Amino acid sequence: MKHFSEDEKAGVYRAIYERRDVRSHFLPTPVPQDVLTRVLEAAHHAPSVGFMQPWDFILVRDAAVKEAVRENFRSANERAAGMYDGEKKALYGALKLAGISEAPLNICVTCDRRRERGSGLGRQSDPATDLYSTVCAVQNLWLAARAESLGVGWVSILDTDALRQTLQIPEGVTPVAYLCVGYVSEFGDQPDLEKKGWEQRESLGNLLHIDRWGNRP
Amino acid sequence: MKHFSEDEKAGVYRAIYERRDVRSHFLPTPVPQDVLTRVLEAAHHAPSVGFMQPWDFILVRDAAVKEAVRENFRSANERAAGMYDGEKKALYGALKLAGISEAPLNICVTCDRRRERGSGLGRQSDPATDLYSTVCAVQNLWLAARAESLGVGWVSILDTDALRQTLQIPEGVTPVAYLCVGYVSEFGDQPDLEKKGWEQRESLGNLLHIDRWGNRP
Repeated sequence: MKHFSEDEKAGVYRAIYERRDVRSHFLPTPVPQDVLTRVLEAAHHAPSVGFMQPWDFILVRDAAVKEAVRENFRSANERAAGMYDGEKKALYGALKLAGISEAPLNICVTCDRRRERGSGLGRQSDPATDLYSTVCAVQNLWLAARAESLGVGWVSILDTDALRQTLQIPEGVTPVAYLCVGYVSEFGDQPDLEKKGWEQRESLGNLLHIDRWGNRP
Repeated sequence: MKHFSEDEKAGVYRAIYERRDVRSHFLPTPVPQDVLTRVLEAAHHAPSVGFMQPWDFILVRDAAVKEAVRENFRSANERAAGMYDGEKKALYGALKLAGISEAPLNICVTCDRRRERGSGLGRQSDPATDLYSTVCAVQNLWLAARAESLGVGWVSILDTDALRQTLQIPEGVTPVAYLCVGYVSEFGDQPDLEKKGWEQRESLGNLLHIDRWGNRP
């Protein structure tokens, strides 16, 4: 077995630590086809329950489609802002939470819950496992993109039914992630939400349990 | 912005392509604390909705706890086997689907749905996003583990209620992944389920859509 070299290992950790959820700083430069293929193949090589490979990728570049999604975001975000009061509301309003129109490419990653590949192996105990497989594909895509100096932002503030309608996603297929993808002028040195004081990073030690929940190291 | 060197980039793609869902070939060698910490910190640096960081990690080494989980798997797997007939049933019976007792370390990754970090940002449209964040942490852990030459196997054939009871996981916390972790004698060159003829890899081209579902490239 060939171990990873120090540089290869450093690459994996760089991708993990320098990956950002990008909402600003997108450049209009198109993503070259060979780079896009590498990133999508990385996603496609994620683990999947029963080797089901339940994902599909809708590549969105059409301005009218992007505009419909941006409008979906705008109204979902307005509703969401209504949840906060006072200082938190002001801070929420100042956050930039999506780069749908600035990013040259959007990718909707879906989970086809009807797919028969894998013959249901591993899905009887927990039916959400196919959704989880799809998220593994998203994370592979995100890390490969970082290695290619491509920024990715996951927009979760979207009305799912409206998104489904815009992208003509059939029943039985769940949109899992809507991603904005493109080259960026910079990657932040911390998550935006940390830098802007929305939330702090928890310490890993507070998240560990030994053998059973609540038994602290 | 410092681009990834060729070796760093190769490391990221190696981790993605050479990662395996390991059920066999675990070695009893304990996982050193510094390696484990690196892998857990990698998980903890996953993206999370609203910077919620909803995950916890239960590190299982106790033989009695592992034995209870193994028994859970045995009975869930017996029920699952009942779904198949004929040749598929024989093939199912011949698959090794978990390495709970052989792996020196098991890690249960959970999602605390009650956690207030992030103040709900990004979770109003799709309440599953906290589960998705937790899966991103699992995938980070898996790739970092591969870079460290550690095998990881995700056991999804487990009765969730029984697992919750064994690990004393409180209500409001969802066990997302039960992972077997350890050094291995080898990493397969293909997924086990592909090698053993359970399922084939789909071609990426069949999973792409342009601007809307069904509009093929």
